[in-house]
Amino acid sequence: MRRASDQEPAPPGAVVLLGVPLDENASFLRGAALAPGRIREALLCGSSNLCTESGLDLADHPLVYDAGDLSLSAPEQAFAEIEAAVARLLSQGTKVLVLGGDHSVALPVLRAYRSHFGPLQVLQLDAHPDLYDTFAGNRYSHACPFARLLEEEPRIRLAQVGIRTMNPHQRHQAARFGVQVHEMRHWNGRTPFVPQGPLYVSLDLDVLDPACAPGVSHPEPGGLTTRELLSLLQSLPGPIVGADLVELNPLRDPLGLTAMVAAKLVKELLGRMLEA
Amino acid sequence: MRRASDQEPAPPGAVVLLGVPLDENASFLRGAALAPGRIREALLCGSSNLCTESGLDLADHPLVYDAGDLSLSAPEQAFAEIEAAVARLLSQGTKVLVLGGDHSVALPVLRAYRSHFGPLQVLQLDAHPDLYDTFAGNRYSHACPFARLLEEEPRIRLAQVGIRTMNPHQRHQAARFGVQVHEMRHWNGRTPFVPQGPLYVSLDLDVLDPACAPGVSHPEPGGLTTRELLSLLQSLPGPIVGADLVELNPLRDPLGLTAMVAAKLVKELLGRMLEA
Amino acid sequence: MRRASDQEPAPPGAVVLLGVPLDENASFLRGAALAPGRIREALLCGSSNLCTESGLDLADHPLVYDAGDLSLSAPEQAFAEIEAAVARLLSQGTKVLVLGGDHSVALPVLRAYRSHFGPLQVLQLDAHPDLYDTFAGNRYSHACPFARLLEEEPRIRLAQVGIRTMNPHQRHQAARFGVQVHEMRHWNGRTPFVPQGPLYVSLDLDVLDPACAPGVSHPEPGGLTTRELLSLLQSLPGPIVGADLVELNPLRDPLGLTAMVAAKLVKELLGRMLEA
Amino acid sequence: MRRASDQEPAPPGAVVLLGVPLDENASFLRGAALAPGRIREALLCGSSNLCTESGLDLADHPLVYDAGDLSLSAPEQAFAEIEAAVARLLSQGTKVLVLGGDHSVALPVLRAYRSHFGPLQVLQLDAHPDLYDTFAGNRYSHACPFARLLEEEPRIRLAQVGIRTMNPHQRHQAARFGVQVHEMRHWNGRTPFVPQGPLYVSLDLDVLDPACAPGVSHPEPGGLTTRELLSLLQSLPGPIVGADLVELNPLRDPLGLTAMVAAKLVKELLGRMLEA
Amino acid sequence: MRRASDQEPAPPGAVVLLGVPLDENASFLRGAALAPGRIREALLCGSSNLCTESGLDLADHPLVYDAGDLSLSAPEQAFAEIEAAVARLLSQGTKVLVLGGDHSVALPVLRAYRSHFGPLQVLQLDAHPDLYDTFAGNRYSHACPFARLLEEEPRIRLAQVGIRTMNPHQRHQAARFGVQVHEMRHWNGRTPFVPQGPLYVSLDLDVLDPACAPGVSHPEPGGLTTRELLSLLQSLPGPIVGADLVELNPLRDPLGLTAMVAAKLVKELLGRMLEA
Amino acid sequence: MRRASDQEPAPPGAVVLLGVPLDENASFLRGAALAPGRIREALLCGSSNLCTESGLDLADHPLVYDAGDLSLSAPEQAFAEIEAAVARLLSQGTKVLVLGGDHSVALPVLRAYRSHFGPLQVLQLDAHPDLYDTFAGNRYSHACPFARLLEEEPRIRLAQVGIRTMNPHQRHQAARFGVQVHEMRHWNGRTPFVPQGPLYVSLDLDVLDPACAPGVSHPEPGGLTTRELLSLLQSLPGPIVGADLVELNPLRDPLGLTAMVAAKLVKELLGRMLEA
Repeated sequence: MRRASDQEPAPPGAVVLLGVPLDENASFLRGAALAPGRIREALLCGSSNLCTESGLDLADHPLVYDAGDLSLSAPEQAFAEIEAAVARLLSQGTKVLVLGGDHSVALPVLRAYRSHFGPLQVLQLDAHPDLYDTFAGNRYSHACPFARLLEEEPRIRLAQVGIRTMNPHQRHQAARFGVQVHEMRHWNGRTPFVPQGPLYVSLDLDVLDPACAPGVSHPEPGGLTTRELLSLLQSLPGPIVGADLVELNPLRDPLGLTAMVAAKLVKELLGRMLEA
Repeated sequence: MRRASDQEPAPPGAVVLLGVPLDENASFLRGAALAPGRIREALLCGSSNLCTESGLDLADHPLVYDAGDLSLSAPEQAFAEIEAAVARLLSQGTKVLVLGGDHSVALPVLRAYRSHFGPLQVLQLDAHPDLYDTFAGNRYSHACPFARLLEEEPRIRLAQVGIRTMNPHQRHQAARFGVQVHEMRHWNGRTPFVPQGPLYVSLDLDVLDPACAPGVSHPEPGGLTTRELLSLLQSLPGPIVGADLVELNPLRDPLGLTAMVAAKLVKELLGRMLEA
Repeated sequence: MRRASDQEPAPPGAVVLLGVPLDENASFLRGAALAPGRIREALLCGSSNLCTESGLDLADHPLVYDAGDLSLSAPEQAFAEIEAAVARLLSQGTKVLVLGGDHSVALPVLRAYRSHFGPLQVLQLDAHPDLYDTFAGNRYSHACPFARLLEEEPRIRLAQVGIRTMNPHQRHQAARFGVQVHEMRHWNGRTPFVPQGPLYVSLDLDVLDPACAPGVSHPEPGGLTTRELLSLLQSLPGPIVGADLVELNPLRDPLGLTAMVAAKLVKELLGRMLEA
Repeated sequence: MRRASDQEPAPPGAVVLLGVPLDENASFLRGAALAPGRIREALLCGSSNLCTESGLDLADHPLVYDAGDLSLSAPEQAFAEIEAAVARLLSQGTKVLVLGGDHSVALPVLRAYRSHFGPLQVLQLDAHPDLYDTFAGNRYSHACPFARLLEEEPRIRLAQVGIRTMNPHQRHQAARFGVQVHEMRHWNGRTPFVPQGPLYVSLDLDVLDPACAPGVSHPEPGGLTTRELLSLLQSLPGPIVGADLVELNPLRDPLGLTAMVAAKLVKELLGRMLEA
Repeated sequence: MRRASDQEPAPPGAVVLLGVPLDENASFLRGAALAPGRIREALLCGSSNLCTESGLDLADHPLVYDAGDLSLSAPEQAFAEIEAAVARLLSQGTKVLVLGGDHSVALPVLRAYRSHFGPLQVLQLDAHPDLYDTFAGNRYSHACPFARLLEEEPRIRLAQVGIRTMNPHQRHQAARFGVQVHEMRHWNGRTPFVPQGPLYVSLDLDVLDPACAPGVSHPEPGGLTTRELLSLLQSLPGPIVGADLVELNPLRDPLGLTAMVAAKLVKELLGRMLEA
Repeated sequence: MRRASDQEPAPPGAVVLLGVPLDENASFLRGAALAPGRIREALLCGSSNLCTESGLDLADHPLVYDAGDLSLSAPEQAFAEIEAAVARLLSQGTKVLVLGGDHSVALPVLRAYRSHFGPLQVLQLDAHPDLYDTFAGNRYSHACPFARLLEEEPRIRLAQVGIRTMNPHQRHQAARFGVQVHEMRHWNGRTPFVPQGPLYVSLDLDVLDPACAPGVSHPEPGGLTTRELLSLLQSLPGPIVGADLVELNPLRDPLGLTAMVAAKLVKELLGRMLEA
């Protein structure tokens, strides 16, 4: 994979991987900051190749770049730094695939995206709605990013798939913000919506069943299988202009299997983002 | 969760968790006696909340109680103690959700239930029929409880789902006792029967595929996914008047993921038992 | 299970287990040579019985034999030794179920089979096509056996199920050799073909999702569930005259769960091979 | 082990186990709150007995009690609740062995002890000095308790054994507070000091080498072996009037071996506290 | 390693490995029956060689044989079968190194040895005295073999090293039978006794600290390091005429490290038994 | 830690970390190529600080640099690339601490060192002599580097500590090359030699006991404890002009504990290399 940097940016039209090693806003367990390194390790190790399932080889693809990991300051400044870095990449005409980090990183990433694209459509794949007004005293907790986002820009159309921990408060929030929630108990495997315009995918690995992705901070039984998630990604109407993949926790992934799942999903997301 | 005790019993209509830490009748591996503590740990740890998927919050629910673990004597007296404890709870007008222990505990629990309810209907979710006449010289082995139960009360209507280890002897026993067996190889995901009257659910965690529930003493490949089991529990016609959840073996659950699955199932069972 | 040896061969019509502890041709990780011992351990441990799901008890079956493990010389001679051993068993009128070893062992086994049966039909269950012309400088790598096989005997009809790592080179090879490829992303659970004449099944455990079979050298997310694979094996039109089960890597199977899955598949394969 | 409660307190002279499930002040990983339950599990499981190495059987000892776990409110009130609970036990004439929790719990426990005993002597067994003035913005972090303690009561004589992470700031703090530091690199296995008057032992499990106690939040290579620690405890001049055992993290202890080590240490500490 | 069988016995003077896969008398966990296979696996895997530390190569040594595993009947007959097999090997002039199995197998092995050698000297390396008169109702439990042995032949001189779980009952038994007990808390690393005449070594792997040998059914913290045990074996006065190595439990040894330790000890024991 | 690069080299006198992710010459298991990333992760994670045990803070030390990982071509060119990279760093007046990789990387590193320093003194800390003339057909196997080195430059004085797998061939090689071998069975903890002139330390992590460092490709029971190794490093007469730390295998280190040990050793080595 080619390297991108401020000195040698990726060309317009490229898709750029960007690691965001932040886990300060996790409510229960640290560890997600280690994820970007482990995902790269799984992408490049000799156990698999770098093709998408449709046969596109990403290994030397002229439009696939890795910008490395952001170097972040104290938590207070981290959000501004993340937003600025993503904004810079968007201004260069590239699409960004962010590797978190806990789910709180989606907020600054999406701030940059909506500045650039306007009120785009967001598909959140997640076991949890992440719509808390506040959690354990932290309004920027990984349990809150989509509440903040929709307060700041109510025109964003948010759809959620895989949800299976909805409590009364979050149900209230979902109604208040007009979120289109597809709960796991009712999910039938179909593409859940007809996107209009550019789509951003926010993929929390805990949308998967813990059998498939044990290495997350909040495993929630009863989720999607990896194949169901791959099919969903492969069938989504595009164009996909941005994405994040968050909440891999290497401290809960002793055999590295969840990192391998993350790497597989990165490949499929890259393939879809390269279309059109 | 509120605490119930002999001094301060739960009110009529409540559902009461009761730990039964017995694993003396396991034929292969001890360890299931540690399960009740680990399931409570998973219920209360900061990784998830206490809502059912339908949105009912059990955290402060006025009809959900925990009676703690039974303190059991030597194996010979244990069955009588279990039956007496469950009978006492039933006489107080509460429903009981037993946390085993190995599957042999279902026999004394169901003895109390049939004394109270008459020949009720039992749904056994299990990889194994547990219908051996005797196993390794022990007629009260965890491989035998339903043979004993149906000998003692042939009018109980027993349906089994998830079975995938039927051998000639047990096939003979199933025919002899009129058990309605839904083998896994033929299962189509539909609710397998129309219950008439009160239903008791006996849930052996090994009904799940080992991918979903590795932490059991007898993992048997080819079982239900957690989502399939949740859907089955959510679609069962009620009322569910009692249940047990057995065979979690923490010694085979190094990452605690099977305990999390058990906790999820406890929440859904509690939700269903609170209905009507 | 009865023991077969050169001195006391199994009777005609028997199905014979043969361990082939070779992992020299693995491209990434050694360890598959330990698999035959672990699969036998899982077959015989007290955690399950020896029945197929259809109820056939293999424990004392008069036509089920175990010939133990081949004692192999240096890698250069190993292929000839494997082919000779399988040829000898076929000449005695028995069917062989080989326990690998890495997938390279399928080549000498199939050389013996096509000498005996002519250009038979082969069903390869695998995440990877294994059609490389050469891999890391080794034309007999476990990434190459079916390229070699089809060069040597183009009339063999090869069907592949579960494939999800097809790259341009292998797609070219598949077209060149006329391989019938059923990619995982398009699989609908149906029996993928109508066999004509005798069938050989080459089962690489990585056809399963890593959630079900983590203990392989090349886990590839998005595979079959164990139940889907069992259903496929149970519904295949017969007769099945030979099979191999390869790529279990005990060094990646700390809890032995993948060995249990392998043992389950061995039982079902034995049951199918005993038919007709 | 006998149960003690507010209603039925232990008799004077007894040693009382008290669980303090607090891990809010851990700087890196939560999980220590699960420790008391796991230590009890290891004490009572069938794998060992309840004797000290000197042969004292604690199973039915008339002076050994378990007061269960404290039920703690929000972090702000937790310290006051811990101090009050320990003070109550001390006022009843019992000695307390606290099972943490993270090391921050030592501060409220020692506040109760010095109110009762005056400026007693404290032996801290630890890889880390825990003398930070503040850590990550938290003056009550588990990296700070002994700084707070010695500010509040400079007359306490603190000796530390096992230290191997001393940095310039903490070296300065140690000098300022007159702490007697026995660094691991200089330790020769001898009892490190001559106590005068009553002794309190604060045992952070990370004083042990990670080979012996991997299940802690901050494993630091190069520590004591379990035997070296047992010898030290067995050779300490008494009387030991109180103790805490902290920082077991069950989330890092998949096989439960560190919990077994903790249980062994609890038995030896109980034996020493029962003397005189 | 050469194979020995009833048809082709080892020559006089040889040392013969004999697997005894019995774990029916374990009081807590099954699994030790899997040990002989795993120890052979560790001996032969490519990770190490077959030399003793003194440089003796056992790989093709003309006096080192493997007689495989005993095929045992029901537990009642197992002891007689073990005794007979060992007696047969002794009558052929060979020395036997038994691979257990649980520690109960030492009784029938030592019955054969004392029939052949008279009241020899026995060195038991163990965390537990195994001197219970009865345990959990089983007088042949793995907690009892040395009580039975010394009742049957009081002239056997038994020395124990590594003991750290002595309770009042077993202390009484040790005194009654005149056992020379070297408790771990007093051990100084010296060879603990001057043997007179032929020596038999009974090595329970739990004599080692769980840091070195976690894969046993009853890990007891505070044991020997592997190096200390190797030094003891290397410094024992000979001749060593027999030995057993017991209680490896592969179900508690997920990474196979304890099997590697067992294999190392087997090599050193073989080396010592080949002397004189 | 500061970054060094070809553009911005470290100043003279600095110590530079250099990752060499090569594991092609491992004879049994790949994986050591992942080690440099994991060691950096352990150095920088929040679980410990960056001080040596003597109190030197390396976090912002003006003479400690990280040059990142070498980007290596095919195995044939890798050795030349490694040698060139080290030579370049030496020519800049810096000392190099190489993070392997398998032990074969020591050969090109030491080629650069002896070109620069002449026949320096080498201390090899290792369970294995690595003196094979050839191993599995590879004269550059990780079992051979010191045979090659001493053939190329017989004046190098090589001392080995921790050896415990010496076989007749390697004993012959050691004698032929005049290697000073300190076998583990005779080791008494003392600094094993009086270096004359500059010293290079080649540290294979398997010199440690597997209890302390399980995560290596060839765990060999009976090694040094981490404390014994730290003491040895701390007491070595200097100056230490170069070092490598090799054979960490993250695929065998599921909990990351061996990476933590490696990081601790890196800190102490850096501290010693900064002296004089």
